[in-house]
Amino acid sequence: MKPITTLALAALLAAAPAAAQDASRFRAPADSLIRAATRDSAAWNRMAELVDRFGPRFSGTPELERAIDWIVEEMKRDGLENVHTEPVMVPRWVRGQESATLLSPRAAELHMLGLGGSVGTPGVEAEVLVVESFAELTRRAAEARGKIVLFDVPFTTYGETVQYRTRGAVEAARVGAVASLVRSVGPFGMQTPHTGSTRYNDSLPRIPAAALSMEDAMMLRRMQARGERVRVRLRMGAQTLADVPSRNIVAEIRGRERPEEVVVVGGHIDSWDVSPGAMDDAGGCVAAWEAVRLMKTLGLRPRRTVRVVLWTNEENGLRGANAYRDAHRGEIPNHVLAIESDAGVFAPRGFSITATDPAFEAVRAIGQLLAPIGADSVGRGGGGADIGPIMALGVPGMGLEVDRTRYFWYHHTTADTPDKLDPRDVARSVAAMAVMSYVAAEMPDRIPFGQPATP
Amino acid sequence: MKPITTLALAALLAAAPAAAQDASRFRAPADSLIRAATRDSAAWNRMAELVDRFGPRFSGTPELERAIDWIVEEMKRDGLENVHTEPVMVPRWVRGQESATLLSPRAAELHMLGLGGSVGTPGVEAEVLVVESFAELTRRAAEARGKIVLFDVPFTTYGETVQYRTRGAVEAARVGAVASLVRSVGPFGMQTPHTGSTRYNDSLPRIPAAALSMEDAMMLRRMQARGERVRVRLRMGAQTLADVPSRNIVAEIRGRERPEEVVVVGGHIDSWDVSPGAMDDAGGCVAAWEAVRLMKTLGLRPRRTVRVVLWTNEENGLRGANAYRDAHRGEIPNHVLAIESDAGVFAPRGFSITATDPAFEAVRAIGQLLAPIGADSVGRGGGGADIGPIMALGVPGMGLEVDRTRYFWYHHTTADTPDKLDPRDVARSVAAMAVMSYVAAEMPDRIPFGQPATP
Repeated sequence: MKPITTLALAALLAAAPAAAQDASRFRAPADSLIRAATRDSAAWNRMAELVDRFGPRFSGTPELERAIDWIVEEMKRDGLENVHTEPVMVPRWVRGQESATLLSPRAAELHMLGLGGSVGTPGVEAEVLVVESFAELTRRAAEARGKIVLFDVPFTTYGETVQYRTRGAVEAARVGAVASLVRSVGPFGMQTPHTGSTRYNDSLPRIPAAALSMEDAMMLRRMQARGERVRVRLRMGAQTLADVPSRNIVAEIRGRERPEEVVVVGGHIDSWDVSPGAMDDAGGCVAAWEAVRLMKTLGLRPRRTVRVVLWTNEENGLRGANAYRDAHRGEIPNHVLAIESDAGVFAPRGFSITATDPAFEAVRAIGQLLAPIGADSVGRGGGGADIGPIMALGVPGMGLEVDRTRYFWYHHTTADTPDKLDPRDVARSVAAMAVMSYVAAEMPDRIPFGQPATP
Repeated sequence: MKPITTLALAALLAAAPAAAQDASRFRAPADSLIRAATRDSAAWNRMAELVDRFGPRFSGTPELERAIDWIVEEMKRDGLENVHTEPVMVPRWVRGQESATLLSPRAAELHMLGLGGSVGTPGVEAEVLVVESFAELTRRAAEARGKIVLFDVPFTTYGETVQYRTRGAVEAARVGAVASLVRSVGPFGMQTPHTGSTRYNDSLPRIPAAALSMEDAMMLRRMQARGERVRVRLRMGAQTLADVPSRNIVAEIRGRERPEEVVVVGGHIDSWDVSPGAMDDAGGCVAAWEAVRLMKTLGLRPRRTVRVVLWTNEENGLRGANAYRDAHRGEIPNHVLAIESDAGVFAPRGFSITATDPAFEAVRAIGQLLAPIGADSVGRGGGGADIGPIMALGVPGMGLEVDRTRYFWYHHTTADTPDKLDPRDVARSVAAMAVMSYVAAEMPDRIPFGQPATP
């Protein structure tokens, strides 16, 4: 973040009181939405039912399409308007049977998950070279040829550590390795491997790539440190098949005065093949959906349209995000604000927004209405993967910010289940999404369009 | 705990200063032991090496016997005295292939582990009845016939909740169920099933018994609550084979004046078949072993013998504990004190002892020497499974008490790995075991033999 100049600070202080006054006019509907959201566990129950009914909702699977059908029917039953789906072609990666077997210094099945997009292998057996950074791999490049490289990298931040998952196979192939393993990206595990996407580089061999549980990665490193020769056999039935059709879900409460102006709220409906995806991102989908359902229930029809968008294929392609941008290109200038919830629906703290200063001020003022539930913090720099493509065209975009303490414990694992979310937190996340989207759609002056020039 | 009477309190206050004065004479050797234990990560490294080298050390497996051989060699290399093993016949339960498949309302593989001692089944397929207590099963007994009963019981205390694991199969069989499932016994999980022993009753059919992950158990309960028909197929290749030989490990530092009087320190060397058993109980074994190694290294030969005993088969039979009692029956009256570490070697808090009041006072005085590492709390009522048989014959017995916050997260799971333990906590646990056993063996008056009559 750049330091705030004196001039910008003065502008900011001048703008704030006026915007705050504006927003305070909406205290009554805001309080109604908060009360309605926090009255019961409806949102948690809906999230749990979605997760339990369909299980993992991976792009290209019938389970995802059945979940989409069910949501569409439920939304219609809720009385949402203009409920429909929009076609998206999505990638189809199939995991197949897979295993990582420790052969030496002793025999054991390791806890592993192939990385999304990886090529398969009928079986590659080699000595393992454990490194703790790309820099160490560069230093030991001469030792890596013909080996399986394991990046045993302790979690710092997701942005930093995930590099080893996305780029590991490329960097390992560059030094002649036959496969790439990575310590699961997260701060804590219980022999829980985390999957996620890997990338390839067209100028280098595509080598198979998988994640090990944190525990197993640390064990292999200790074995190497004791001078033991570590050998592993990796088998992966992974295949990339032809693209298949999926859909984004769209539903609205139409604006009473300026229906063509749109506030988008949403999350992504797909999850990884192994993950029930309760927090990532059934909870985010339900937070957006319930926000609009509550407006409907309370008879709060805002000046502008609030549109729920549940994107498909966030996890391994972002095809839904791109398809939404393409299908709605003509109305992009009418997108007042886009709000994504994809950080889990733990205790909400507020929002963070990427937009111009006036847009930030407007949103900050709305945020103050969320003080009763402790979600009134509005920061800069947020957004979301699914709203990224329309933000790139100028739409102010922001993300729901929540307590992230445990998000990366469960991210992309089998343990991303409903019990990890507290019904009270989910309810308050709904309230935050509802108040923010309702007031942004209701207040007389629209939030200014446009994004600041990239520095 | 019973309220302290005025009389007892007066006696206690009178006794304390004298005992404390006695123990304070041993401050110098105690401080040396603490310094030596906390100087490096030797204990953690040894625990990790034991775990990494052999993996799970289940009774009846070659891995357990190889681990025993290795420990014996290492103990000899450390210069411990009278290092030997003592024969024990142990049960041999083999898990085999196993699965629990959800068939309805949707297909999914559940996260399961068969319970130790369970019979197998080539495949039993039935509707599931989810209950949350034995009382609910009794109320719904008529519904249970021919079904698979799932005890979905939230964790309260281990002692209370583990009843559903040990007695579930009996209670389910009593009402005509064909199999018994139990929510894994623990306060938190990441799709991590916990194994452990189940029991049968000779007058009832022996039905297969398994644990589900907490998440899966809760999901089945939600499905039932939604009125869905839950069907599961359980397959278990479990078999109980003939007993096989194993061994307890014994090693000593012989007493310089009264070698026939013995302070026992120990833990159990076996673990469940799926569990690396780092905290349960490689850490406890190493804490006892390192305690004696440090005395040797520092030239601290106490008045009495300190004997390390690493018991075999704690997890599914207690055969090692009983064999030790039987092999040493003649010298039981010479057992001054028995100390077990089997609660994980997390941050040590002190000890808890089951003994007469004078023995308690003596130990409480020694405990004060552990104030520098925060392990000076001495309570009543402790012991350990492996020292239970000799305590029943009058030996004062106690357990190392540690921060148990996460013990039952990992207990009997694949996630009981070295990384869960902090080297500094392991080092301080060694220090606590070393100071307590050294001073108990060194102080002029022996701790009085005998156990209070059971109230």
